[in-house]
Amino acid sequence: MTVQECQQGLSRRSFLGWAGLGTTAVGAAALGATVGAKAAGSADPTAEAGAAYDFLGTHQSGITTPAQDRLHFAAFDLTTDRVSDVTRLLRDWSRAAQQLMFGSDVGTFGAMSGPYDAPPEDTGEAVGLPPSGLTLTFGFGPGLFRDAKGRDRFGVADQRPAALIDLPHFPGDNLDHGRSGGDLCVQACANDPQVAVHAVRNLARIAFGTAAIRWSQLGFGRTSSTSSSQTTPRNLFGFKDGTANIKAEEPIALDDHVWVGRSDQPAWMHGGSYLVARRIRMTIETWDRTSLREQEDIIGRAKGSGAPLSGGEEFTEPDFAAMGSGPNPLIRKDSHVALAHPSHPGNSRILRRGYNFVDGNDGLGRLEAGLFFLAYQRDIRTGFLPVQQALAASDPMNEYIQHVGSAAFAIPPGVTSPGGWVGESLFGSG
Amino acid sequence: MTVQECQQGLSRRSFLGWAGLGTTAVGAAALGATVGAKAAGSADPTAEAGAAYDFLGTHQSGITTPAQDRLHFAAFDLTTDRVSDVTRLLRDWSRAAQQLMFGSDVGTFGAMSGPYDAPPEDTGEAVGLPPSGLTLTFGFGPGLFRDAKGRDRFGVADQRPAALIDLPHFPGDNLDHGRSGGDLCVQACANDPQVAVHAVRNLARIAFGTAAIRWSQLGFGRTSSTSSSQTTPRNLFGFKDGTANIKAEEPIALDDHVWVGRSDQPAWMHGGSYLVARRIRMTIETWDRTSLREQEDIIGRAKGSGAPLSGGEEFTEPDFAAMGSGPNPLIRKDSHVALAHPSHPGNSRILRRGYNFVDGNDGLGRLEAGLFFLAYQRDIRTGFLPVQQALAASDPMNEYIQHVGSAAFAIPPGVTSPGGWVGESLFGSG
Repeated sequence: MTVQECQQGLSRRSFLGWAGLGTTAVGAAALGATVGAKAAGSADPTAEAGAAYDFLGTHQSGITTPAQDRLHFAAFDLTTDRVSDVTRLLRDWSRAAQQLMFGSDVGTFGAMSGPYDAPPEDTGEAVGLPPSGLTLTFGFGPGLFRDAKGRDRFGVADQRPAALIDLPHFPGDNLDHGRSGGDLCVQACANDPQVAVHAVRNLARIAFGTAAIRWSQLGFGRTSSTSSSQTTPRNLFGFKDGTANIKAEEPIALDDHVWVGRSDQPAWMHGGSYLVARRIRMTIETWDRTSLREQEDIIGRAKGSGAPLSGGEEFTEPDFAAMGSGPNPLIRKDSHVALAHPSHPGNSRILRRGYNFVDGNDGLGRLEAGLFFLAYQRDIRTGFLPVQQALAASDPMNEYIQHVGSAAFAIPPGVTSPGGWVGESLFGSG
Repeated sequence: MTVQECQQGLSRRSFLGWAGLGTTAVGAAALGATVGAKAAGSADPTAEAGAAYDFLGTHQSGITTPAQDRLHFAAFDLTTDRVSDVTRLLRDWSRAAQQLMFGSDVGTFGAMSGPYDAPPEDTGEAVGLPPSGLTLTFGFGPGLFRDAKGRDRFGVADQRPAALIDLPHFPGDNLDHGRSGGDLCVQACANDPQVAVHAVRNLARIAFGTAAIRWSQLGFGRTSSTSSSQTTPRNLFGFKDGTANIKAEEPIALDDHVWVGRSDQPAWMHGGSYLVARRIRMTIETWDRTSLREQEDIIGRAKGSGAPLSGGEEFTEPDFAAMGSGPNPLIRKDSHVALAHPSHPGNSRILRRGYNFVDGNDGLGRLEAGLFFLAYQRDIRTGFLPVQQALAASDPMNEYIQHVGSAAFAIPPGVTSPGGWVGESLFGSG
């Protein structure tokens, strides 16, 4: 709520709260207007501060939603053995997510509407900030189904999807256990990082006693577009990334490659997806000393325009058969674009939603920088797995990157009815 | 340059470069228009993507410039003993700063205008992004004047300002050597974090062989306003911060408390300032379990409105004599606002320019979160020192914070003539 509303003793929650909001599927534009769009005239309306997305929907938000500019991602360990704790947490998180995405605080803010001698329900740092296009996406890691000791803590071991595989060790992996795995995850994306951080912090607070943050990652700049209305951003190698990404405007491709379909098992995942998260450290200082020719040969695209080296412009399909003046094709067979392309044997399309990160520097004065890779797919076995097997085996980019964190999550379907909660299809009304 | 310009073989540098730009003191508004303002209609024109600040000026940018939303700060160790290396670096940095602040790339971008078999001069991740209000502020640490072994490497030991003190150990300090100190610093502030990161990365690249990053810090949200046109932001305790900050619209206060004056020594610092940087870890999980009453008593302000507990609204002056119904004043004598207030014995005003940070989490699942405190002052002995002595001795907030990094820098005056460079007043035309 705004300071004015606070001073007037009005809680946005009290008059625009859970029940009222749930009965109307308010579109982003209408809701944005309600809460006061700020940057009118901006080229990308989805990047406006006032933009708000609806929590209710067939699919969770934060997947095909136009990729916001900022990220806070957190993986949690469940610290309970009681399924009732887990379902209560998922109910609480769902309720809070609806409030946060609407731009409300979690609960009431304190002096004006809450008890003065209790801690405020909301931590307060987002008071006065608009919804900022916040999306919250919740996921279930392998540990929800069976913990590290093999125990079926919550009685859902037989519901683990086969598509949620334990990722194998890939050549070159140098994984940090403390930056990998997790029983639950929350992906918070927003146009304002303070809004994303506020959401994760308050969801972590709600989880106190049931789940604790295992690792978390901030991303400052998106490296993918998920809508054809967005320009293609650049990663920290300086190249446009995700040109061939699946976009929200491709419903058939989304059904084929991103959403779990009616023919897939288990049934509780219908309308969901699977997420692979990889923390990819880039040794940018070494990359920066590489010639432009070498950089472009490794990527397979022109650095300036993003066009494939076989010619055309950014969105021209690469022609892997086009030959140069010498004996080699214009796009190297082991270039990143060739190995990751859906036409490569065994590959299929995935929806990428990655973010650039810089977490200070290492002891050698090199920026601790890289790509926090996030990819959504219908089945990890046919999505990330074959692509990463091809890349790990022979991508010349491996000289400049190292995968240092890894996690996979089942992303349950969205909540379609007021009062519903994420995970209800798995745990029932329990 | 834009991709279009790149494809046309035009470099913005070549037709709007150093010489041409330097001859005109282009105002932010005019320059913003030139390079294509994006978010027309935004409430805060300085937050517009197209906003650009001039590198030339009596003072360096990034001090009274309206505080941008994002930060990348880097401290460097000089790895050379030759003064000529240092002055060349400062010249190169000054030239690059002018280009970066204008929204240009550093040097030329490569294929179209540079040698294809050399590394690109610019790293590329900001290609196509507008200037985004980038400011770059350069500073000199104690190590420039005398290194840790006491050597006068660059012949300027007798020019060290007395106002640039070595900060004493304060009660509660738990400083990490690896996050403290530095011979040089660069503060990059921008409305787009990718632009700030790009600037630090390319300046670090230019420094290769002469200086290496010692530590660096990203901040995602400003915690101070430096212009009365800005709303007061909130820190991660959820409180409005910096309400009483010195603002750009207070020229007398700036001359009294921020800018080094004509009567101050050494003369090369006239028009400069002194910066104290402190990395302050907040144990926000503990804070979040504290009652609203206790939080407000500690701060001395209302959490919602930011008004002092003696009454009024945010910008009402605190009345430290106002008594409550009991024997105590409404604002506790050891509250943060009382101890830090200019009316506290020995205190004077400083200009704060801090940022919220979250750097993942610690091993206990607590967010590695806090305030990256930046403060500019005319003399550290009368600015930060007495305030921090008072706070470290008795601020009840100390239960929730820990200072884990510390550094101080002399901020030389701005560059006023084309071809000039930061530090010229210290090193002469050398």
